[in-house]
Amino acid sequence: MTTALIFGTGAIGGFYGSLLAQQGLQVSVVCRSDYSHIKQHGFQINSHELGQWSFQPEQTFNSTATVKTPVDYLLVCTKVLDNLDRVKLIKPAVGINTTIVLIQNGIAIEDEIIAAFPNNEVVSGLAFICCNRIHHGEIEHLAYGRLTLGNLPSGFSEKTRRLATFFNDAGIDCQLSEAITTARWQKCIWNAPFNPLSVLSGGLSTQTILQTQEPLIRAIMQEVFTIATALGHRLPEDIIETNINHTQQMPPYKTSMLLDYQAGRPMEINAILGNTIKAASHTNTECPHLKTLFALLQLTELTEPVKRSETPWPNQNTLG
Amino acid sequence: MTTALIFGTGAIGGFYGSLLAQQGLQVSVVCRSDYSHIKQHGFQINSHELGQWSFQPEQTFNSTATVKTPVDYLLVCTKVLDNLDRVKLIKPAVGINTTIVLIQNGIAIEDEIIAAFPNNEVVSGLAFICCNRIHHGEIEHLAYGRLTLGNLPSGFSEKTRRLATFFNDAGIDCQLSEAITTARWQKCIWNAPFNPLSVLSGGLSTQTILQTQEPLIRAIMQEVFTIATALGHRLPEDIIETNINHTQQMPPYKTSMLLDYQAGRPMEINAILGNTIKAASHTNTECPHLKTLFALLQLTELTEPVKRSETPWPNQNTLG
Repeated sequence: MTTALIFGTGAIGGFYGSLLAQQGLQVSVVCRSDYSHIKQHGFQINSHELGQWSFQPEQTFNSTATVKTPVDYLLVCTKVLDNLDRVKLIKPAVGINTTIVLIQNGIAIEDEIIAAFPNNEVVSGLAFICCNRIHHGEIEHLAYGRLTLGNLPSGFSEKTRRLATFFNDAGIDCQLSEAITTARWQKCIWNAPFNPLSVLSGGLSTQTILQTQEPLIRAIMQEVFTIATALGHRLPEDIIETNINHTQQMPPYKTSMLLDYQAGRPMEINAILGNTIKAASHTNTECPHLKTLFALLQLTELTEPVKRSETPWPNQNTLG
Repeated sequence: MTTALIFGTGAIGGFYGSLLAQQGLQVSVVCRSDYSHIKQHGFQINSHELGQWSFQPEQTFNSTATVKTPVDYLLVCTKVLDNLDRVKLIKPAVGINTTIVLIQNGIAIEDEIIAAFPNNEVVSGLAFICCNRIHHGEIEHLAYGRLTLGNLPSGFSEKTRRLATFFNDAGIDCQLSEAITTARWQKCIWNAPFNPLSVLSGGLSTQTILQTQEPLIRAIMQEVFTIATALGHRLPEDIIETNINHTQQMPPYKTSMLLDYQAGRPMEINAILGNTIKAASHTNTECPHLKTLFALLQLTELTEPVKRSETPWPNQNTLG
């Protein structure tokens, strides 16, 4: 029996974990906030694309410290935040044969995990999904859901291929990448402009931002492209064009960083921008637009969350 | 009898106009919003530095169209905004001997006035003042008040010198500048970072911004310095250092752009940033930080004013 443990059971962790359970894996969860509710009632998933189902985890823990048996796959699905020590938090649950799967946003977010667990297989995952935790244990999956997985530093193992098959069999498009780090930079092309601008504009949608400030969006994307290229990642030549066109065709979209900001939660500023700027400095690449956005976002974190405006949209929670 | 007309009777126009009246000038005003109140009750000024006084204008107009006799000095004290056609609005009041005095913020804000009134003397003025219109006709002068005046394109006339003397005799430090355009760029060194950052940070004071993001402040100031230099303005070599030190010593300060933003009024985005960026393009100077701030401010104007946060500070109204 294949076993999995989900660390971080917000919308992303609960959703993908429930799909693995559907495929017959023994899936347990570590819940730090919803523990009592999940232990008793499990999860209810309402997917606009895949229907409705419930998910009762094999075991529910409130900390990895109480995990007795190491699992085959440890899926880490938290935000990547400065005050969240992932290494320390997952350590008790990592066994000799545990594959650590990071389904998280950002650039270079795997480095500290690889350094801490040099003998474990580490898989990096990118989720393109629009889903939301609307209540204790209640997850609404609004759209998308595609996953990309790959081992670090590159390629993918047989065990990673099996994980992808579980997701594909559950109805999720899960692709394997020979160069997952490059894929992260590809995703950063979109994240680097739209996440910060949605917050700094005071809550505008991707559509409004793109319609009115396309030259700035392109300038920011170009900086990310240049940094990635300097690091040796060969991104598609038309990637900026593709991202612009794709975003024009998307419905108005509220980014994950804006959702965090408006809810008074910490934002993934370092994972998305700080680490990108660090990479630029390592390659002596200029990125004044990114630096301006980074500094401004740091400033916004000094304001009182209670004063932040709310726009009257339906909630979403996304990894974009 | 020397005559003056004040166009734009917010805090700045009402305050400086009242000082000229104290010096025996015949001072009339054009009020577009407070007309009835001012016509009946005039102004009450409460200055923390100069005491209290009242100011009953010689004549009160609700439009320049009703001004019958052109004056010696026409002081234009409005904000510089895209939807406010200064040329059209002041035209009826400009006589052959009228000196147009612009006490306004921004870069290259004199160009359209000079073009429209090629035979009139145009004086450019910079106010360093912290004052506020707290009610109809009620002005509170909190601090500072220094004026710098100079003719365009450079130098200063005898008539400008006389105007400066009136202000100095009223207790205001009014200096004459041989190169007022250069002085505008000097002021822009401070305005370009602090005004946008106060808005984009979500309402932080100059002090907090400087304490946490000094490298960004310096990078923005450096761009303004480079543009000014490319245009031939010789700014003091230590101007960035001076501005940083001076701001560190100032009390926490809410910029005029932030006050406008939070009150739902239009901001002087083009006057302060747009025209600076235009100047950069004329001289083939790069200014990515300024361009990022400019685009972000344009985005913030697309949000609903009602959602903007208020910080619990005493009000101010300033030209900084």
